[in-house]
Amino acid sequence: MDKLRVGLIGSTGVVGSLISKMISAHPYFDLANVYASDRSAGQKYGDVVYGGTYEPYKDLIVRESDPDQISRDHNDIIFSAVSDDKAGLIERRLAEAGFPVFTNASANRLEDDVLLIVPEINGDLISRNMKKGFIIANGNCSTIGLSLGIDPVIRGRSVREIVVTTMQAVSGAGYPGVPSLDAINNVIPYIQKEETKIEMETRKIFAGKLNAEIFATTTRVPVKIGHLEAVHIEFEQKFDPDEIVEEFRTYGNGILKTEFPSLPEKSVIVFNENNRPQPELDSMNGGTGLKAGMAVSVGRIRVRENSVDLVLLVNNLIRGAAGSTLLNAEIAYKGGII
Amino acid sequence: MDKLRVGLIGSTGVVGSLISKMISAHPYFDLANVYASDRSAGQKYGDVVYGGTYEPYKDLIVRESDPDQISRDHNDIIFSAVSDDKAGLIERRLAEAGFPVFTNASANRLEDDVLLIVPEINGDLISRNMKKGFIIANGNCSTIGLSLGIDPVIRGRSVREIVVTTMQAVSGAGYPGVPSLDAINNVIPYIQKEETKIEMETRKIFAGKLNAEIFATTTRVPVKIGHLEAVHIEFEQKFDPDEIVEEFRTYGNGILKTEFPSLPEKSVIVFNENNRPQPELDSMNGGTGLKAGMAVSVGRIRVRENSVDLVLLVNNLIRGAAGSTLLNAEIAYKGGII
Amino acid sequence: MDKLRVGLIGSTGVVGSLISKMISAHPYFDLANVYASDRSAGQKYGDVVYGGTYEPYKDLIVRESDPDQISRDHNDIIFSAVSDDKAGLIERRLAEAGFPVFTNASANRLEDDVLLIVPEINGDLISRNMKKGFIIANGNCSTIGLSLGIDPVIRGRSVREIVVTTMQAVSGAGYPGVPSLDAINNVIPYIQKEETKIEMETRKIFAGKLNAEIFATTTRVPVKIGHLEAVHIEFEQKFDPDEIVEEFRTYGNGILKTEFPSLPEKSVIVFNENNRPQPELDSMNGGTGLKAGMAVSVGRIRVRENSVDLVLLVNNLIRGAAGSTLLNAEIAYKGGII
Amino acid sequence: MDKLRVGLIGSTGVVGSLISKMISAHPYFDLANVYASDRSAGQKYGDVVYGGTYEPYKDLIVRESDPDQISRDHNDIIFSAVSDDKAGLIERRLAEAGFPVFTNASANRLEDDVLLIVPEINGDLISRNMKKGFIIANGNCSTIGLSLGIDPVIRGRSVREIVVTTMQAVSGAGYPGVPSLDAINNVIPYIQKEETKIEMETRKIFAGKLNAEIFATTTRVPVKIGHLEAVHIEFEQKFDPDEIVEEFRTYGNGILKTEFPSLPEKSVIVFNENNRPQPELDSMNGGTGLKAGMAVSVGRIRVRENSVDLVLLVNNLIRGAAGSTLLNAEIAYKGGII
Repeated sequence: MDKLRVGLIGSTGVVGSLISKMISAHPYFDLANVYASDRSAGQKYGDVVYGGTYEPYKDLIVRESDPDQISRDHNDIIFSAVSDDKAGLIERRLAEAGFPVFTNASANRLEDDVLLIVPEINGDLISRNMKKGFIIANGNCSTIGLSLGIDPVIRGRSVREIVVTTMQAVSGAGYPGVPSLDAINNVIPYIQKEETKIEMETRKIFAGKLNAEIFATTTRVPVKIGHLEAVHIEFEQKFDPDEIVEEFRTYGNGILKTEFPSLPEKSVIVFNENNRPQPELDSMNGGTGLKAGMAVSVGRIRVRENSVDLVLLVNNLIRGAAGSTLLNAEIAYKGGII
Repeated sequence: MDKLRVGLIGSTGVVGSLISKMISAHPYFDLANVYASDRSAGQKYGDVVYGGTYEPYKDLIVRESDPDQISRDHNDIIFSAVSDDKAGLIERRLAEAGFPVFTNASANRLEDDVLLIVPEINGDLISRNMKKGFIIANGNCSTIGLSLGIDPVIRGRSVREIVVTTMQAVSGAGYPGVPSLDAINNVIPYIQKEETKIEMETRKIFAGKLNAEIFATTTRVPVKIGHLEAVHIEFEQKFDPDEIVEEFRTYGNGILKTEFPSLPEKSVIVFNENNRPQPELDSMNGGTGLKAGMAVSVGRIRVRENSVDLVLLVNNLIRGAAGSTLLNAEIAYKGGII
Repeated sequence: MDKLRVGLIGSTGVVGSLISKMISAHPYFDLANVYASDRSAGQKYGDVVYGGTYEPYKDLIVRESDPDQISRDHNDIIFSAVSDDKAGLIERRLAEAGFPVFTNASANRLEDDVLLIVPEINGDLISRNMKKGFIIANGNCSTIGLSLGIDPVIRGRSVREIVVTTMQAVSGAGYPGVPSLDAINNVIPYIQKEETKIEMETRKIFAGKLNAEIFATTTRVPVKIGHLEAVHIEFEQKFDPDEIVEEFRTYGNGILKTEFPSLPEKSVIVFNENNRPQPELDSMNGGTGLKAGMAVSVGRIRVRENSVDLVLLVNNLIRGAAGSTLLNAEIAYKGGII
Repeated sequence: MDKLRVGLIGSTGVVGSLISKMISAHPYFDLANVYASDRSAGQKYGDVVYGGTYEPYKDLIVRESDPDQISRDHNDIIFSAVSDDKAGLIERRLAEAGFPVFTNASANRLEDDVLLIVPEINGDLISRNMKKGFIIANGNCSTIGLSLGIDPVIRGRSVREIVVTTMQAVSGAGYPGVPSLDAINNVIPYIQKEETKIEMETRKIFAGKLNAEIFATTTRVPVKIGHLEAVHIEFEQKFDPDEIVEEFRTYGNGILKTEFPSLPEKSVIVFNENNRPQPELDSMNGGTGLKAGMAVSVGRIRVRENSVDLVLLVNNLIRGAAGSTLLNAEIAYKGGII
């Protein structure tokens, strides 16, 4: 069967580049058209994309992200890696035009008619009774890490509060992103809008299943790839520590019971070693090929009477962005929705 | 009046070096004798001290840290920057021999007969009715930052719990300390014994005034100087946000009402800017000379119904170590105790 | 006597900020007016300057860098820290309008009627027979370091060639400058136009005294402040190694025989230790106050039959930029030229 | 045919670990025995090796590096990654006992009866008329990069001198190696013995074909993997610039005309882009699997009348160490010598 033709908007940034490279070897999708701001339009994709792309894609001519133009082009589905608020309107217009839109952009994530999906948690929302044109968003990079990292133990428990401190890699800010004069030998204790995203999106992903207050502090550390998060979860009930650790170990892929190209062998990997996970050692956990970088690594699990403290690591570019956009599309594809 | 003659044990490490440099310009103290392990004994201090020292001290001959020897030497007081557990016995022997010992070492901090002092909080414990030989310890670097950063708002309030995540500089591990292969482009989510120290020492410093549970996660980031801490404080009561911010602003020097050479102008400095404090910009806050690096910087204060989230920065080498050892001694000196 | 009123163009960048701070305590100069691009014009200086400024200067209103406007304002001299090619025309117009212009910008450095000064080498060119309006430029940051570092040994010798590799700090690229995604854990083997600047400017500074070929390779390393340069100098003659080392040690301030506020105690400092100079340890060498960061540090001197290899360090922001602009002006001031 | 049984001495360090992982998938070799200092002896390899190893090797019990013991064990060939001078005697004893020894250690490289091989340059020295026990060494990491990077253009030309400045990654110093307090935000302008190694080894590798003087300055930069080198080559003759670039492009694998598992597709890769090669982008150049990291990347080629300046990058752990040790052994294996 022919692969679906992907139209990629926001194609020239850090995440767009990564999506193009991941698609190049994908069993379901192929890159058909690349879109970007008018600054890049008309140029060869290979000449303007940050971080390079698959050799055969280099000669694609970048087109302007105009919804009308995109609608006229031969695209089966749309991937969006647009990094600013312009994503909102473009994605909406494309969905209205009947396209399935899978987006990493934050603009529409909290909209009522947009699915915000972390497949292992709520991938069942991607179902056949969706109308033809739609937007399916993955969460913010830190949110995805947090959601997956806590999912194994919050099911069926009443959570009182979650306190999370993130130590985020500079690649999360795109390119040129964080100036090196700010980043080297330093920590910046603030990332714009990030804390609100974590609090709002996490709540939406878990829907009614998580009523806890969430307190997030987000910081930027001199690391290129891999967001580390220190998480404190407080429950209403007491429990057995062994039970908690066991739940992490047996989590597997959450509610997903079949394979997908970008679904890691285990979505949550647990470390016993005190000094793990680390960005440099664990950002590519999950498997090989498309699965690499798709697992969230959890370590330093410390259980008290009614609380769990842990540290988790999420590859902000793969599981936290490009790979999650892809995985959402794979689920829709395999489910016969697109 | 003559300056007190200081015997410095653990003199060749990162903190010992710093104490020697700070003493060089001190109005009360002068460096008389330097002690270290037998590996350095017999050599010139300037040849073995990490990070250098004051020019005139370079020719001091390092002696072995033998309590008997130290007792025989002409020392008025002892400063201890010993980095390992050997500190415990040496300090105790010197106190028994009648010396006032001011220590940055962790070995004796939690002992019942040792004062663990953060002067702005409990400096009044340093009093004339102490016996002649004694040990006064300052806290662990992260603990001092945390204690000072929360002191303005926990007085008179009932605290339910404190959740703290630290992002600690590599200098906190001494020299050679953290291998660069581990540190560069990475975060290590664990520092041995550090979390327990924070939890136990904080409780001791506040004595009965803080009965909260404390949850600490300590990490190492690729920063040379300055520990950043993200703190979540949860109270039993609700309160007015403005009141909280006001309490930080008017904290001054806590219970200290007179000047000391190493006491900063304000012990807690509050930032309104979202992106502060930062290790690179705020590690030397506090004033000039001996006061530089002695203030704890607090920012990102976010108040909800009954909780406060904030980020604080402590210079781990100065306020978190050498400077606090000195300040404790200054209080004893000015109080006529030594 | 009243201080000269400085008009500072390019005032909001990394170097402009530094000039403003250095002027704040200057015995000859005071900051009167600050200029920048129209993006910043009309705003308070303190709100738009990168890296802050002296408290009392914060309320200065930034004006647009329009030569006519600047001429009408009450300025005695002009300092230029403009970072792009616009500097060329503005500086020239101001000189034509009769202003003495001291510039860190590269635009006019190689112009015939512009003095390119490293005071210890050719400061005697700043003389009373200059016409009223003029431009005096300091060299590029790497060039200043190289020129000073070789000056002690090339006088009176015939140099065959100079091969220099620079390892430059990111602050040399201004702000936002080098993206952290490029800088962290990496070396970038190219800095635009830098190699040509080094080759051309060095030749102009030494005028006829250096006819050697110069081969420069310039790289960017993950360091914030301090350019390190590995230099190979090859002479036509053989010589005695001891003689070379002696020439470095006795260099003093080159041809300058009187004091100036920003002239370091010794313009070239020589290290015997194998592991020096280092950016983190030696960038502030030169003295205290305005002299700090004004010395070039030289180490690893290795002499063979007719060649000298060495490593030098120059503080790219102070000696390599702001401080050199100031020193040039001090010489003109003390010489009665302005 | 059965794979050769490898005895690996110096097995627990950075390079030893890498050799073990590379052997795990090797068509000719398999890891039979691991040796290390008595500190690690008796423990499981997986528990003491820095940086991990192939899963099935984890249970190997580390034995002490005693030549008699090693001789008695069932080993077909010896790989040595010993990091200190002890390598000298051990390797010699094993060669005397009849073992073919392939070593990354520096101890014996310059010995007359030891081959110092960079296969593309002098791999033809590995020949059938060698006696049974022997030592074949690869060069120092920087030397290998330099030798390969200049080989394309020095053949048949008379070289007057070579000036090289290295910017070396911290992994070159092993583990724990460079303290992060020294490395972060800094450059250290000295690496012990490194400059002499480069000068002496390069001369030996090229035997009579390179009589130039070599001036090396070696520095350590805050980069984990990948040594960058700025090289200036001066010839006695003039030449056509195009000719030089062409020689780099057509170099291929030098004198090697057949395939080997660890021989890259092209041993020297040439970049036209000004900002390449970079450690973060080019350290894994060479191909996939065992070939990854085996190519030297050359860029910024600037040709003048009779000189060539260039920048080269060598993966210090793979091409500069483990991979070169392996490649030497592959040549001996395929040549029927072992």
